Amino acid sequence: MGFDSLWADLEPIGRDRRTGGYRRFAWTAEDDTLRSWFAGEARSRGLDLTEDRAGNQWAWWGDPDAAVVAGRPGVAIGSHLDSVPDGGAFDGPLGVVSAFAAVDLLRDRGVSPDRPVGIVNFGDEEGARFGIACAGSRIITGALDPDRARGLTDGDGITLAESLTRAGRDPAALGADPETLRRVGVFVELHVEQGRALAELDRPLAVGSSIWPHGRWRLDLAGEANHAGTTRLADRRDPMLDLATAILTARAVAEARRCVATIGKVRVAPNGVNAIPSSVTAWLDSRGANADDVRAVAEQVAAGAGTTAVEESFTGDTAFDRPLRERLVALLDNAPVLGTGAGHDAGILATAGVPSAMLFVRNPTGVSHSPAEFAERGDCLSGVAALAVAVEDLAR
Amino acid sequence: MGFDSLWADLEPIGRDRRTGGYRRFAWTAEDDTLRSWFAGEARSRGLDLTEDRAGNQWAWWGDPDAAVVAGRPGVAIGSHLDSVPDGGAFDGPLGVVSAFAAVDLLRDRGVSPDRPVGIVNFGDEEGARFGIACAGSRIITGALDPDRARGLTDGDGITLAESLTRAGRDPAALGADPETLRRVGVFVELHVEQGRALAELDRPLAVGSSIWPHGRWRLDLAGEANHAGTTRLADRRDPMLDLATAILTARAVAEARRCVATIGKVRVAPNGVNAIPSSVTAWLDSRGANADDVRAVAEQVAAGAGTTAVEESFTGDTAFDRPLRERLVALLDNAPVLGTGAGHDAGILATAGVPSAMLFVRNPTGVSHSPAEFAERGDCLSGVAALAVAVEDLAR
Repeated sequence: MGFDSLWADLEPIGRDRRTGGYRRFAWTAEDDTLRSWFAGEARSRGLDLTEDRAGNQWAWWGDPDAAVVAGRPGVAIGSHLDSVPDGGAFDGPLGVVSAFAAVDLLRDRGVSPDRPVGIVNFGDEEGARFGIACAGSRIITGALDPDRARGLTDGDGITLAESLTRAGRDPAALGADPETLRRVGVFVELHVEQGRALAELDRPLAVGSSIWPHGRWRLDLAGEANHAGTTRLADRRDPMLDLATAILTARAVAEARRCVATIGKVRVAPNGVNAIPSSVTAWLDSRGANADDVRAVAEQVAAGAGTTAVEESFTGDTAFDRPLRERLVALLDNAPVLGTGAGHDAGILATAGVPSAMLFVRNPTGVSHSPAEFAERGDCLSGVAALAVAVEDLAR
Repeated sequence: MGFDSLWADLEPIGRDRRTGGYRRFAWTAEDDTLRSWFAGEARSRGLDLTEDRAGNQWAWWGDPDAAVVAGRPGVAIGSHLDSVPDGGAFDGPLGVVSAFAAVDLLRDRGVSPDRPVGIVNFGDEEGARFGIACAGSRIITGALDPDRARGLTDGDGITLAESLTRAGRDPAALGADPETLRRVGVFVELHVEQGRALAELDRPLAVGSSIWPHGRWRLDLAGEANHAGTTRLADRRDPMLDLATAILTARAVAEARRCVATIGKVRVAPNGVNAIPSSVTAWLDSRGANADDVRAVAEQVAAGAGTTAVEESFTGDTAFDRPLRERLVALLDNAPVLGTGAGHDAGILATAGVPSAMLFVRNPTGVSHSPAEFAERGDCLSGVAALAVAVEDLAR
């Protein structure tokens, strides 16, 4: 029941044969398979499986409610199993697989923790289908309004509410879930690093310091559909020109303000070779050390393209719990401390007041959200060992 | 059996309820319904229905092969029934419906033409699914190589060959079809105007003079997939920046060279909000009075974006048969003569040596390839009458 067999079972699920990348989107058939895998692993270890009001899966070793009553709530570990389109194998699953493997390691060693230990699979972390990252943790912490969540639509116009119903869930159940959160005294999310800092430091593991302010905005660029061959340039309202301006402005403003900015997703209607588009929708992702700069990028990009930026999500600077971080650094051979531009469920929980931390596992390519993302087996096993050490200490 | 009932039967087929536009793409269920409609109309008039080697439908009144032997081949009229994504109701169908209505009008008048009269529905004129405009006429005239045609893929990676098989056709049959073309002594395509020239002239009908040189090119823009939050700007290979340059260069070079140029279709992979794209594919459509200028637009756009332009189709200047044009002008109350930036099957046939002509019906909006394209009923009936007059004269 080691790391390798857990990893091997997950590997084929949702993998696109042509690209080698993963397409594991929320509340799809692939997601259902991943959830069944999680449930099976929980069952085979005798863990208590629950699903919270956002559909996040929790597998508890020990009684988390009794622990709440006793004033010693549990230690949660885990991450997510969904992916971006053509994502890699590690972003998310490494944290969930390592959590099961860490529990196995503790049990093999005969450790019997004083506090309950929970493994979590947060749903829809990437927001690849409905556009909101960390939707599962945002919903249970109250950061995402359940009415807004239910109304989110995917690229085919299917709402989250409809997709929940199709997946056999009750969309009316969505909402803040203090009962679930109360059980979590501390949360540690292990994650593959999304840069090359550990490779440059020649270290296998790091502890997270903070998550940069980051947000997503939608730009609605209106045009007028017309024939590409018969409409004079002067008579056109071509929204592609606004898209071009938005793309170039995003890069220039981000450079000037020391942020990063990306337009990685566009939707063109009708998207015909010989038709001037009637509309283009573009999504802007921006992040940086300073929240005002990040917001300014979105405003300047939208203004340059003659529209306004519709904020789909925004998260301010998230510093992880300092005593927890220092404890982990000390436990893990004085591990280096890294900040990150990527959002994580651990950041959402930290914002909601749950003492949270992150462990990063070295990624030699530094590439993320791509099939090229990677971690050596040895580093993955170091991650499992670190997680076990952390849980043993925190659950004492 | 008048124009109105023919029009009413076609109207709902392939209409998108949300946009009000049409989605009638080659070898889809909608296309099959349109083909059944055509076959039914041919049958109810006792016309002989054939499908040529590209799947274009022909309905003959009289024996076209006997006419070939007699050295007096037939008079063909018609157009196409497919659409661009979210196209209008008139582009294509107006020519086919008017052709049936013109035959009805001639029969009502007791006209019995000396030469056979054929009504044609050219397949896949818009190229909306497989990217090549006028595929049906290009294949039978030999302008599109059948191996290349079979290998064309749609947005889901389905080849034309596969889609033909699924539609019950034999992809091996694709190819030049001189037997079909020999039957056509002359071709007249009636089409809704794709500009406002007739509205400005206050005339219902025009005769076509020529089709501008026009082409389509594919631009493959390579990038490197990576995380939108964790990858430094300097480390990125973001193909969206090349797309932006291509869009702006297309407009600038087209203006300078008095052409039109459009990037109306793009494909972004993986198209995720928080992923730097691994690749962007963009399609450029360019047209103008001078072929060298049109090609230069494509070359300069590609060079500016750091790639080469892959030519998917190119058609030089197509002047319609001058004696035929002059005959139609004289028959039709000294109708004005218009050139166009739009490609048509009549242009493909003209290039292949078939004496061909076009009639344009006034479009008060001037808009095309959009649900806003329009023709008044009175102008449509003028078009039918003109087509009947032309056929009566040409088939004498």
